[in-house]
Amino acid sequence: MASTTKPGENMLWGGRFTGGLDPLMVAYNESIHFDKALYKQDILGSIAFARANTKGGILTQDEFTKIEAGLREVMAEWEAGKFVIVPGVDEDIHTANERRLGEIIGKDVAGKLHTGRSRNEQVVCDMRMWLRDELRKIEEHLVVFLKVAADRAEKEVDHVMPGYTHLQRAQPIRWSHWIMSYSIAFAADLERLREVIKRVNKSPLGCGALAGNPFNIDRDMMAEELGFEGLLWNSMGGVADRDFVAEPLQWGSMLMLHISRWAEDLIIYSTAEFGFVRLADAYSTGSSLMPQKKNPDSLELLRGKSGRILGQMTGFMCTIKGLPSTYNKDLQESWEVMLDSVKTVSDSIQIATGVLATLDIQPAKMRAALDPFMLATDIADYLVRKGVPFRETHHTSGRVVALSEQTGTPMDQLTYEQLKGIDSRFEPDIADYFDYDRSVEMRSAKGGTSRESVLEQIRVIKEMLN
Amino acid sequence: MASTTKPGENMLWGGRFTGGLDPLMVAYNESIHFDKALYKQDILGSIAFARANTKGGILTQDEFTKIEAGLREVMAEWEAGKFVIVPGVDEDIHTANERRLGEIIGKDVAGKLHTGRSRNEQVVCDMRMWLRDELRKIEEHLVVFLKVAADRAEKEVDHVMPGYTHLQRAQPIRWSHWIMSYSIAFAADLERLREVIKRVNKSPLGCGALAGNPFNIDRDMMAEELGFEGLLWNSMGGVADRDFVAEPLQWGSMLMLHISRWAEDLIIYSTAEFGFVRLADAYSTGSSLMPQKKNPDSLELLRGKSGRILGQMTGFMCTIKGLPSTYNKDLQESWEVMLDSVKTVSDSIQIATGVLATLDIQPAKMRAALDPFMLATDIADYLVRKGVPFRETHHTSGRVVALSEQTGTPMDQLTYEQLKGIDSRFEPDIADYFDYDRSVEMRSAKGGTSRESVLEQIRVIKEMLN
Amino acid sequence: MASTTKPGENMLWGGRFTGGLDPLMVAYNESIHFDKALYKQDILGSIAFARANTKGGILTQDEFTKIEAGLREVMAEWEAGKFVIVPGVDEDIHTANERRLGEIIGKDVAGKLHTGRSRNEQVVCDMRMWLRDELRKIEEHLVVFLKVAADRAEKEVDHVMPGYTHLQRAQPIRWSHWIMSYSIAFAADLERLREVIKRVNKSPLGCGALAGNPFNIDRDMMAEELGFEGLLWNSMGGVADRDFVAEPLQWGSMLMLHISRWAEDLIIYSTAEFGFVRLADAYSTGSSLMPQKKNPDSLELLRGKSGRILGQMTGFMCTIKGLPSTYNKDLQESWEVMLDSVKTVSDSIQIATGVLATLDIQPAKMRAALDPFMLATDIADYLVRKGVPFRETHHTSGRVVALSEQTGTPMDQLTYEQLKGIDSRFEPDIADYFDYDRSVEMRSAKGGTSRESVLEQIRVIKEMLN
Amino acid sequence: MASTTKPGENMLWGGRFTGGLDPLMVAYNESIHFDKALYKQDILGSIAFARANTKGGILTQDEFTKIEAGLREVMAEWEAGKFVIVPGVDEDIHTANERRLGEIIGKDVAGKLHTGRSRNEQVVCDMRMWLRDELRKIEEHLVVFLKVAADRAEKEVDHVMPGYTHLQRAQPIRWSHWIMSYSIAFAADLERLREVIKRVNKSPLGCGALAGNPFNIDRDMMAEELGFEGLLWNSMGGVADRDFVAEPLQWGSMLMLHISRWAEDLIIYSTAEFGFVRLADAYSTGSSLMPQKKNPDSLELLRGKSGRILGQMTGFMCTIKGLPSTYNKDLQESWEVMLDSVKTVSDSIQIATGVLATLDIQPAKMRAALDPFMLATDIADYLVRKGVPFRETHHTSGRVVALSEQTGTPMDQLTYEQLKGIDSRFEPDIADYFDYDRSVEMRSAKGGTSRESVLEQIRVIKEMLN
Repeated sequence: MASTTKPGENMLWGGRFTGGLDPLMVAYNESIHFDKALYKQDILGSIAFARANTKGGILTQDEFTKIEAGLREVMAEWEAGKFVIVPGVDEDIHTANERRLGEIIGKDVAGKLHTGRSRNEQVVCDMRMWLRDELRKIEEHLVVFLKVAADRAEKEVDHVMPGYTHLQRAQPIRWSHWIMSYSIAFAADLERLREVIKRVNKSPLGCGALAGNPFNIDRDMMAEELGFEGLLWNSMGGVADRDFVAEPLQWGSMLMLHISRWAEDLIIYSTAEFGFVRLADAYSTGSSLMPQKKNPDSLELLRGKSGRILGQMTGFMCTIKGLPSTYNKDLQESWEVMLDSVKTVSDSIQIATGVLATLDIQPAKMRAALDPFMLATDIADYLVRKGVPFRETHHTSGRVVALSEQTGTPMDQLTYEQLKGIDSRFEPDIADYFDYDRSVEMRSAKGGTSRESVLEQIRVIKEMLN
Repeated sequence: MASTTKPGENMLWGGRFTGGLDPLMVAYNESIHFDKALYKQDILGSIAFARANTKGGILTQDEFTKIEAGLREVMAEWEAGKFVIVPGVDEDIHTANERRLGEIIGKDVAGKLHTGRSRNEQVVCDMRMWLRDELRKIEEHLVVFLKVAADRAEKEVDHVMPGYTHLQRAQPIRWSHWIMSYSIAFAADLERLREVIKRVNKSPLGCGALAGNPFNIDRDMMAEELGFEGLLWNSMGGVADRDFVAEPLQWGSMLMLHISRWAEDLIIYSTAEFGFVRLADAYSTGSSLMPQKKNPDSLELLRGKSGRILGQMTGFMCTIKGLPSTYNKDLQESWEVMLDSVKTVSDSIQIATGVLATLDIQPAKMRAALDPFMLATDIADYLVRKGVPFRETHHTSGRVVALSEQTGTPMDQLTYEQLKGIDSRFEPDIADYFDYDRSVEMRSAKGGTSRESVLEQIRVIKEMLN
Repeated sequence: MASTTKPGENMLWGGRFTGGLDPLMVAYNESIHFDKALYKQDILGSIAFARANTKGGILTQDEFTKIEAGLREVMAEWEAGKFVIVPGVDEDIHTANERRLGEIIGKDVAGKLHTGRSRNEQVVCDMRMWLRDELRKIEEHLVVFLKVAADRAEKEVDHVMPGYTHLQRAQPIRWSHWIMSYSIAFAADLERLREVIKRVNKSPLGCGALAGNPFNIDRDMMAEELGFEGLLWNSMGGVADRDFVAEPLQWGSMLMLHISRWAEDLIIYSTAEFGFVRLADAYSTGSSLMPQKKNPDSLELLRGKSGRILGQMTGFMCTIKGLPSTYNKDLQESWEVMLDSVKTVSDSIQIATGVLATLDIQPAKMRAALDPFMLATDIADYLVRKGVPFRETHHTSGRVVALSEQTGTPMDQLTYEQLKGIDSRFEPDIADYFDYDRSVEMRSAKGGTSRESVLEQIRVIKEMLN
Repeated sequence: MASTTKPGENMLWGGRFTGGLDPLMVAYNESIHFDKALYKQDILGSIAFARANTKGGILTQDEFTKIEAGLREVMAEWEAGKFVIVPGVDEDIHTANERRLGEIIGKDVAGKLHTGRSRNEQVVCDMRMWLRDELRKIEEHLVVFLKVAADRAEKEVDHVMPGYTHLQRAQPIRWSHWIMSYSIAFAADLERLREVIKRVNKSPLGCGALAGNPFNIDRDMMAEELGFEGLLWNSMGGVADRDFVAEPLQWGSMLMLHISRWAEDLIIYSTAEFGFVRLADAYSTGSSLMPQKKNPDSLELLRGKSGRILGQMTGFMCTIKGLPSTYNKDLQESWEVMLDSVKTVSDSIQIATGVLATLDIQPAKMRAALDPFMLATDIADYLVRKGVPFRETHHTSGRVVALSEQTGTPMDQLTYEQLKGIDSRFEPDIADYFDYDRSVEMRSAKGGTSRESVLEQIRVIKEMLN
């Protein structure tokens, strides 16, 4: 009635089977080579579960004592690098730990550990604990980056450089204002990260395979022991949800976007043509032949990896899209992107910090790149302050620029007579306005380029870091 | 010295130019056909800016009065559908409104409106205001969805159906538990949306082109007038940042993922083979020939559009990746994804609400799909409660299943003698455990399938909605 | 038995229904506002289908004559802009055309048009014909771009400029070599486009709803009439497949990546700091205030839109992922990305062509940016030719560079004695090697920077264009 | 003048430096842990380069003999697993191989290997050779899959099952028609793969760092030795291009989309509710407790990994977007996605082949799922053949269905009198049309469900495989 093609019958393809197994499928299915990274979370979760089952009368106190001691011994083996994975048996970290526990304390007691528990909830518990801890480390790295940035910005507040729009010179700014423009973005990342962690850090223990726990286990007690801040409130959702991986990926991809723009600026600023900054040797690659060539490898890797994280986020969201509810094996794809993205983001922040902390700036080149035309708006603003309507000032300023171009005289070297010839409302103090330092100081509204405005920004950021 | 190829000289390509312009480039560059949607925000932002400039002495009270009156007249024209866009002149909403203001109140006063302001800050101001308002509407739609879901879940709490993992029947659950499994996910979306709105709703006014405002404008006053909750603290960041578009896109793509899974379940449940639900006619398409065929078009569109939002998010993040700081024209790409994604997400939530509110459920078919094998864990749990170790109970339960298979007797129709033959610890009350309702009721830990657990979940959600 | 919540009963949500319809759902479902663009393909497909049904005896010759005449009248109405869409009735282009045909020739004959045909095959037929035609236009645009590039490269082959790696000056190259580096990539796009068109241009007519045609229709005849190159060989696949949209999206996203890199180079080359090129006014935006500022808006838009196409491709592939076989309404999402991406890609190529054709190059600035250190490898190569082992030459060249740095003497101004002091194998002809033109000419292997190598590349490209 | 913060001075961050290096940066930068996979290609490329340099007079024959022998010894060490990577020295496979060659044959001769060559061209050469070889293996796996599918389709051509649209039962089809619907898509993948390989398989050797080769090396000779089919025609393009990674990723993501839909169908068909197929134990996971539960893990992993490849493709394209021309370190990101995607796609095709080859079909359940309503179009078509206009037949058939529903009589059990009562043109032979086998046989146009049409499809595919 039923029709089937046995492996081996189909000669085209056969051959791969050994003992009813397709070794390629076994490898495709296994997760032990990556999920072993979470041995500790797996063990702590088991201890909490056993303790709650003891309270509920499922385990005796004596059984619990044995289980806890055994699990701590397994953990010690992992920590000492002595745990031996049994190939083909230990398909994931959960079976590996339980197999080993059974060898240590005997299968009778070890066999009770899993009472009322499912691998579905266990996987999620391990991942959420691990991720929460790692995100908190990332939070610390980000705080350090922001402190380094704030310190540089404070110390180097006097250097003036061109500000660009469309990569064209536009208006003078402070170098520190540039630093802070990114710090504000990274500070928003910090704020958001704290919100993300809060959502990651919810307990699935007690969700079972999908329908919940039949022994009325004390979920709050387990959550508290493991440092969770609240429960996942629906057992099906608890095992089905991988938002707790996707949301940090979204967060990380946004942070990496910020890093990619920051890196792009610094790559451009470190060209021979701009020359505003020089990377420390530790973050660039020289050439024995061409000593002037300093390839900004660190910044290029940072920029490049922003694509990697975006891809991981997009790909994982596509994996989730359209899945039926609860657990489907597709969700195993969450592991590798979680592990890799945490490492990439964490390394990237630390390397960006190193780059920034050791960057060699070239204030003279920054200043040399300023161009009198960048003061054209200041000339217009001067006249606004004299009561001239904006539209007219704009026109007048344009004529000053034109005169400069026609005569080949830099705008700041036009004589007072020449200026007065254009508009009689120019007074001798106009000479003071051809001054880049004055220009940045004039923009004193909140968030602007004046010294005080920049220092205020630094204070705002610093307050977030405590 | 400089070498160039004039248009027209190059005959291969020439031809397209008219009056020094490439009409294709003009169209490629214009934004008026989409940014006109924000005429109101543009006008309100201009009024606030003019009011602050009045306080700062840049405008007289009389000039401000004229400007405000003129701008309100322009707004009235838009509202009445009478505003006439001048092709080739009104390239964006900002120039269109200012051009019209000049016609109404004269160019002398209108020409002062823009004093100290840049289009860069203006664009961002309009977009943030509009987006904040739209996201708040989406928030309301989501609250309605959750209320409809909670109401159905409460009313229909008694229906039992199969719970699936891997799309294979696993354990009995309540239909309401299924509803709540998604409600919990959507509730997290609601929580996060409120956080996102907070970050969108920051004021860029006073950031200028990139370096800030030279007339010490009162940024807090403008922010307050326009309903912003705080300032963007760095002027370069203020004009460069399009995170305020990207983050809602990330949020929307996550919400749509939830909708895609929810839709997938309902599409499967509405097949002839499952038959658990029937969509209302308003949300499905019939066939005049095949009356039994009801295509779940609404659910398929919802599922399909999850890809659209994911793509918009990914694409826009790719657009931002590696851009130099401050404004680059690439950022114009933020407009269309913002407008389209808001509409798509908003419509999708409302349609999902309609689908859910009008869905016809088939409790008899749900119950008929339950299978005694789904009670195998309950049998094991029964023995655990009698003190038998879990590992042993698991084995025993497996033997009960096997007997059922071998004898072709449904598991719940095995005699007490047959069961006792397998394990003498079965007592007559075992018969009571072959009961799906009892099974769901047994899972009474928080988040489980018992009636009280489900009702508690409903209460948790409802608290979030107020 | 069945339980349902009627619209209206649910007061939270009710209200939106009119006559059993949810107007929002009607709008969400309709495609007429975008698929009307394909009115012509729809009509031609119908004529071909009717002709084949006539051959098969389903229609009489007289009926066919009426149908064809009627359909051509409908087409004339569209072309004249006189076709009136009936809201709520004409939900898509197929129903609109058939409704109108019935009005013109009477429902009796018009009602036979669709015999044995399904909307599923009709949609695909229209889309494939339209897309094939549009891709062929894009092919022509790409050929023009490549001709303009080849012409410039040929004419401007003598200008030498710095070649960069890591955006650091590395070795001298010809400006034309830069042009050709992208032309080669775009030529590969051209080759691939021709392959893609071949796969798009297959006929679905005769696939039916999913199971094929029951009247043994002559599929080859229809395919030939409509210009298809072959059949879709499986009826289910024929209606399920949207690869014909996804593959052009993949193609377009690759092309746009090339454009994004090309634009990035030109944006950097048009900064004040580099100054190698100036965009024509038609493709940049000036500032009345700052005449030296020329924002490369066209290039930024081109670069930005590369993200848009990537997003459309990714999003649409996500929409398809995991769909069950044959037609699902999710596939309606293929329309808008198809229409928008074709327009975006087509416009982008044409605008890139305009930018390139009108670009003003600054050969003096290119040459001024050359730096003697860029000849360090030439010095090493000089010694290799004198028989010195490469590793040693590398070391010697490094010492020349170091001497230049220590003495502050540009490398090409070191005396022969200074050089001989470093390595006695330098002979007086070494002076000839401090020459950028000679340097580029030395790289004469295929694909290199020598004049002849560049001209050969141009010939290779030109051969592809015929 | 220059301002810098030395590591160590900055106490917040200091500490990580050892000997001027940031160990985290060293690890971030290294590629040896993944690029060592290409040791063989690297060595073969070096031999070809040395041979060409010998022809060009750069190396003596004796030097070449030593270099080749030495390199083959290095290769033997890799093959024997004896090659020892020196941490911190061997940062990539190129330096590792050259370092070891120097140890074996002495630095004097080994130091000549790299004359006129750059790591930039070498990297690309290795990757293209490796990828070409791997894609050819994938081509073979795909051919095997298609053969297995064609064989099953041929052998099982008699089984009839429901065909679905919108996952709703629509018309009867053959099981083999379902198989072939995917085979046609995979066959297009095969065709396209062959085109992709052709573009991957181009030689970069002789491109140098970016400007070409200064010793007029014979590029064609090297290309031929290494099995390339043509040259990369521009040296800058040759080192800048990573399309050869992106295009296979695009290809792979399309193939995986096909696999995802194929898997989705089979997952649904293997539910208890459908029950059309059962997976072999080797490709599913059972439950000791619930023997009826067979989780289709293999199919879910296949479906899930389609997201992974999509993400890798999207992410890598984002990495490339907007990069300046030639080599930038960002391109190092191409390695890991290349290696992982090749493995994932290759494994996935092989596992899909295993699943299909061992699948157990349930023809009785397929047939039981057929529903007389699925013949409604056949009834209409019957009348069309009697000369009744299509629109009328459609109406009549609808009345037959309605009668069946009202009377509760399955449509195929209505009496001839009942049918005649609806339309007098029904003749007694109508009874023959209530036949699923006849229905599929009627769809005999090319690509349809008739036996001969399906067998023709199989022949079409088989021709592609030789």
